Amino acid sequence: MDIELDSVIVRFGGEIGIKGEWTRRRCQQLLLRNLMSTLGQRKLVPKAITQKRGRIYLRTTKAKTTALELTKVFGISSVSPARQTSSDLKAITETTLEIAQTQVDNEKGFAIRCRRVGKHPYSSMDVCKELGKKILERLKNRNLRVDLVNPDIIISAEVRDKQAYIYTERLQGPGGFPLGSQAKVVVLLSGGIDSPVASWLVMKRGCPITPIYVDNTPFTDERTTDRALETAKKLFEWAKGFPRKTYIIRNGQNIQRIKEKAPKRFGCLLCKRLMYRIAERIAEREGAEGVVTGEAIGEQASQTMHNLRVLDDAATKFPIHRPLLGFNKTEIEKLARKIGTFEISTRRAKGCMAAPLKPATKAKLEMVKEAEEKIGITEMVEKAITTSETLDLS
Amino acid sequence: MDIELDSVIVRFGGEIGIKGEWTRRRCQQLLLRNLMSTLGQRKLVPKAITQKRGRIYLRTTKAKTTALELTKVFGISSVSPARQTSSDLKAITETTLEIAQTQVDNEKGFAIRCRRVGKHPYSSMDVCKELGKKILERLKNRNLRVDLVNPDIIISAEVRDKQAYIYTERLQGPGGFPLGSQAKVVVLLSGGIDSPVASWLVMKRGCPITPIYVDNTPFTDERTTDRALETAKKLFEWAKGFPRKTYIIRNGQNIQRIKEKAPKRFGCLLCKRLMYRIAERIAEREGAEGVVTGEAIGEQASQTMHNLRVLDDAATKFPIHRPLLGFNKTEIEKLARKIGTFEISTRRAKGCMAAPLKPATKAKLEMVKEAEEKIGITEMVEKAITTSETLDLS
Repeated sequence: MDIELDSVIVRFGGEIGIKGEWTRRRCQQLLLRNLMSTLGQRKLVPKAITQKRGRIYLRTTKAKTTALELTKVFGISSVSPARQTSSDLKAITETTLEIAQTQVDNEKGFAIRCRRVGKHPYSSMDVCKELGKKILERLKNRNLRVDLVNPDIIISAEVRDKQAYIYTERLQGPGGFPLGSQAKVVVLLSGGIDSPVASWLVMKRGCPITPIYVDNTPFTDERTTDRALETAKKLFEWAKGFPRKTYIIRNGQNIQRIKEKAPKRFGCLLCKRLMYRIAERIAEREGAEGVVTGEAIGEQASQTMHNLRVLDDAATKFPIHRPLLGFNKTEIEKLARKIGTFEISTRRAKGCMAAPLKPATKAKLEMVKEAEEKIGITEMVEKAITTSETLDLS
Repeated sequence: MDIELDSVIVRFGGEIGIKGEWTRRRCQQLLLRNLMSTLGQRKLVPKAITQKRGRIYLRTTKAKTTALELTKVFGISSVSPARQTSSDLKAITETTLEIAQTQVDNEKGFAIRCRRVGKHPYSSMDVCKELGKKILERLKNRNLRVDLVNPDIIISAEVRDKQAYIYTERLQGPGGFPLGSQAKVVVLLSGGIDSPVASWLVMKRGCPITPIYVDNTPFTDERTTDRALETAKKLFEWAKGFPRKTYIIRNGQNIQRIKEKAPKRFGCLLCKRLMYRIAERIAEREGAEGVVTGEAIGEQASQTMHNLRVLDDAATKFPIHRPLLGFNKTEIEKLARKIGTFEISTRRAKGCMAAPLKPATKAKLEMVKEAEEKIGITEMVEKAITTSETLDLS
């Protein structure tokens, strides 16, 4: 049987650590709030919490489950399920021996690492030497060896003031900044592979999101809508404690009008410029500071560097943020898998049936604007906003 | 001695492969041109070139060096130094045996992979079986075993029409699109860690770059300038055959004026809005389609989601592209190392001495605009452009 782990070490040094005092404290507060929301929703509320600079220590009977859950909290760089003891060297040694007993197999090479903050009658090096020696002595019959270069297992002791934590495992968190440390953004979420990844990347840097799904029915079908809402729900799993408001825009009639009245090759550009405008209106209403899209350079005809400029022209009040600009498709897919949206985004659904066969890759802005005049773009935006619906994806 | 490798397989399927016929052909042409420029500059011109769908095959006496050089050509997904032979199964077998002879050590597990395009009197499976059998027979005394799950070495045969290529190594290229397949952009290159990485990411998606270095002397020093120009040179190593024009903007007097006449907390925002304006003017002159910066959400006070909106407002004709928006600092550093700019960007240099102690993190746009009025922003841009210099970093 494994020794009972009773604690979790939560690390958030990195970029948060180098901020000024005020920002750092605010980030830590937010991180703690988000961490508590996440654990609260999973019924994993810790028994005690100790805050230190760059660390939060949790006491819990479910250390492993808790640690795993926290790898989904932005701002956390890593977590370790651990066993807590006092900073007395004897106590550290006994706890470490108990852990070694269950964790280090015969014939294995091991290393001891120690990190120490506070005043203690020993150095980190003393701890490493003592623990290494005692493990070799006590587990003599296992034929172990110290291997600092390429160990099979690393046993770490983190001594912080009057406490010490012994652990063998470190799980990566997403890093970045706590959700809510940056202003809110609206995201154009299609449910395809890209837009959820783009959303996740800005969330990782601290921005809460309000998704906007533009529903092109009858040029798509309800499977496409389902897919989009499912990806939104998946993203909100990374945003415990934050509002889950999502906008749905009815766009079918608009597309019908574009198809009837505008040059075919401009179809996607006109549709996207329309979406940008709608997104700006919603950003304004929601008090958001930007519009996020999943565009990557060259991925589609509407995403040539030239056409991105034609698109950008439609946004006048908010920046259009495209976090995937420089990503290759394989890189986007890899992230989508990590986030958990890939499986949803690749479900069978009807693609947009209105996309032209030969879209413009180098559209003339003046001609696009002329076409917008003709289809009555302002009125289209207005109607989209008044007929928009919101869902609470709880 | 190793068997002499006489060929390189260049792969560029992926995103290029799924484009329409016209775009695909254009990408392949560009890729070939860029590949030839790269090899030409290194005196590695191949003896013969065979183009096929998704592949370019090179004949060369320096297969390994050539392959390594090509991992720096955008659009190439991977390369393999190889030995060419005919598609006759006996020839394939003999060549494979020669390679196995020198490459497969005693007691090792090996796997055979075969990829076949064209008409042949055998299937890929036939090739694998035959090669596996013959290797086990001929190298009997080495005590080898076939291991398809976790092999120590993979020997691959790629049969394409009348040729076959045998190889054991696959080097990753950057993928993306060939440089020049997208419109040119100007990049605000500071020489710090971020902006070269941002530049590289848009290059990877096909955009040639024209760097703009804004020289803040006397608020920085010549080491800062050197650093910026060195990173530009490093980026141009990824752009063989493309112009190496770089702009230098003298900005010292402008900063002096901002320091004297504007609220201190707006310093960086005013400086950045000024740079955006200058960059737009140069983009126009250069026929570029966008401005690229190294900004990442929250990295600095001027890069809060709120302030990015304040900055964006200054660009009126071109999109501001920020490929690093959603990156963590550690992720940026990792890429910088791969690109080769990290070592340069972290050399000791004087940071900007004009940055305020307490910069605004949530500046009011109206107040920033007022401050610009007062410092005479239009005149500052005009002067920066007329006194700008260009360098050819060849």
